[in-house]
Amino acid sequence: MLTGRLLELSALRYTPAGVPVLGFRIAHSSQQSEADVERAVGCEISAVALGPNAQLMAGAKPGEAVRLTGFLAAKSLKSRSLILHVNEIEFLEGNQNGI
Amino acid sequence: MLTGRLLELSALRYTPAGVPVLGFRIAHSSQQSEADVERAVGCEISAVALGPNAQLMAGAKPGEAVRLTGFLAAKSLKSRSLILHVNEIEFLEGNQNGI
Repeated sequence: MLTGRLLELSALRYTPAGVPVLGFRIAHSSQQSEADVERAVGCEISAVALGPNAQLMAGAKPGEAVRLTGFLAAKSLKSRSLILHVNEIEFLEGNQNGI
Repeated sequence: MLTGRLLELSALRYTPAGVPVLGFRIAHSSQQSEADVERAVGCEISAVALGPNAQLMAGAKPGEAVRLTGFLAAKSLKSRSLILHVNEIEFLEGNQNGI
């Protein structure tokens, strides 16, 4: 699970099988404790949503705060960079009307 | 939280403040469900442990299965690649003697 602010959202696309897909990036920042030391951490993460989640994200705007649940996977067989596959999206400010 | 197999472990080092630190990489693979489709996913993740966790990892061997809990952060101000900062380590096969 990860909270963050939406940075960029690409356009809603469809896979050859007709499944909606939307890639985006989020900025995460939080206070964390590590070896008894409090520290501020931050990172940017590439994420992708498929199906109804992609359609939900199509209505989102950069800057919106979200809580994401999903799994990490390699971007592709050739690229080891990580991408968060999102299974659950919660908008944290105000209610976000559904799809 | 993430399970995986240890790939490479660097040597135990110490920060200027004398805190033990150990970097390593793990390979994660699992079956995940995404937009109602089951799929096998995998990735390799850079991780770092500090303090007692670093000393615990110093006794680990590549190939061992572990369950890690922690937080994601950017590798450095200049590098956006992600690194998992590990706060909890559980060895999944047999018991691993403590520090």
